[in-house]
Amino acid sequence: MARIKCTTSYDGTNFSGYQVQPEKRTVQGEIEAALSRIHKGQPMKITSSGRTDAGVHARAQVFHFDSPLSIPEPNWIRALNGQLPNDIFIRRAEIAASDFHARFDVREKEYHYRILTSQEPDMFRRLYTYHLPEDLDLSKMREACSYFIGTHDFTSFCATNTSVKDKVRTIYSMDIFVENDEVVIAVKGEGFLYQMVRIMTGTLIEVGLNKLAPSEIKAILLKRDRRAAPKTAPAHGLIMWQVSY
Amino acid sequence: MARIKCTTSYDGTNFSGYQVQPEKRTVQGEIEAALSRIHKGQPMKITSSGRTDAGVHARAQVFHFDSPLSIPEPNWIRALNGQLPNDIFIRRAEIAASDFHARFDVREKEYHYRILTSQEPDMFRRLYTYHLPEDLDLSKMREACSYFIGTHDFTSFCATNTSVKDKVRTIYSMDIFVENDEVVIAVKGEGFLYQMVRIMTGTLIEVGLNKLAPSEIKAILLKRDRRAAPKTAPAHGLIMWQVSY
Repeated sequence: MARIKCTTSYDGTNFSGYQVQPEKRTVQGEIEAALSRIHKGQPMKITSSGRTDAGVHARAQVFHFDSPLSIPEPNWIRALNGQLPNDIFIRRAEIAASDFHARFDVREKEYHYRILTSQEPDMFRRLYTYHLPEDLDLSKMREACSYFIGTHDFTSFCATNTSVKDKVRTIYSMDIFVENDEVVIAVKGEGFLYQMVRIMTGTLIEVGLNKLAPSEIKAILLKRDRRAAPKTAPAHGLIMWQVSY
Repeated sequence: MARIKCTTSYDGTNFSGYQVQPEKRTVQGEIEAALSRIHKGQPMKITSSGRTDAGVHARAQVFHFDSPLSIPEPNWIRALNGQLPNDIFIRRAEIAASDFHARFDVREKEYHYRILTSQEPDMFRRLYTYHLPEDLDLSKMREACSYFIGTHDFTSFCATNTSVKDKVRTIYSMDIFVENDEVVIAVKGEGFLYQMVRIMTGTLIEVGLNKLAPSEIKAILLKRDRRAAPKTAPAHGLIMWQVSY
């Protein structure tokens, strides 16, 4: 039995999220179906670094699975991509240590949120950026980021429909940079709660629009109440950028 | 009756081309249906600068239509975009002279063909670039372009299933430039035959791969036979960039 570690990108547009759900097209469902075909119909299960919500994209999501097949390492990538639809692509496939775990071994996750600030929408980036034709105050947004960095109870920045009890998370860094007409929010942390990056982004946008003072983030965190934070930014601007082990 | 001139962008991915066809989703069909809704169900017809093939995109396609409604000029854009699906966007709508004609008055059309040359495919550009992970010889491709410029019989660069008789066209300019990891072919001309830009692109790719000498283009043009030219480049790398009047 070999444990295979895969790095995959996907376009979240046409998926009902990452996790398998009955009757829905999901990333996990498509990959497990592809693996099952490679294994002559045997049901297969993959374990990822974590889920992404419906509409969220991935540049480098990681998952692992165990296989009884003795396929040489360089051939896995071709075998998988040959079975997968166009909106999922395996970027790397390697034989990992038998105790490697895609979820438990995560050291750091990085997400990017892309905001297109041009006056006009862009037909060819509409699926991968959130179009917000406004002047954002980047220095205020950067100041706001500083309140998120560190270890906090992020209850105010977590969607309420979650079963997770411990809402304390650690953010290592949060940067704002400009790429042509896009404002990119890049956040690194040990892990994130359900919709946490999108709620933090929605909050940073309010700050950038001068509707919220950066220092108010401190108070919102202390309230531990989702209703204290602004609305969730749309899913399609978010990309799972990298997972480090 | 007012004649309205519209500039539109569209994502060709999910259309069976531009021109109305029964039972198919087309750009023209969607726009005419939207206009018909604005005109209380009255059938509406638009005239564009020309068709684009299935899968080809547009950054700035132009069409006109006549309307009996007295909608103020600035309101047309909102009325139209409010009725259109996400993959068509009206960028400008203006009241034109009553004798303006989107097809007959064209002075110049510009197309861009984007080739992604990175080793790895890019999930987020896969719909709008042709992925060809090869080193292209740009100076040879530029030399090849020079043979296309000017007035020629382009029969060898026209798909055979066309009813157009006169295959003489004039190309004003043809440039190759690099944008990060993309090679872009930009061509301007008075007008183009069916699949002409894609066949010229397929030919330039053969030159870039050193499979064809630039000077052979002269001989291919003289043969006036589609079989003399290499294969057609895929539709999804092509964007109608601009139409000038």
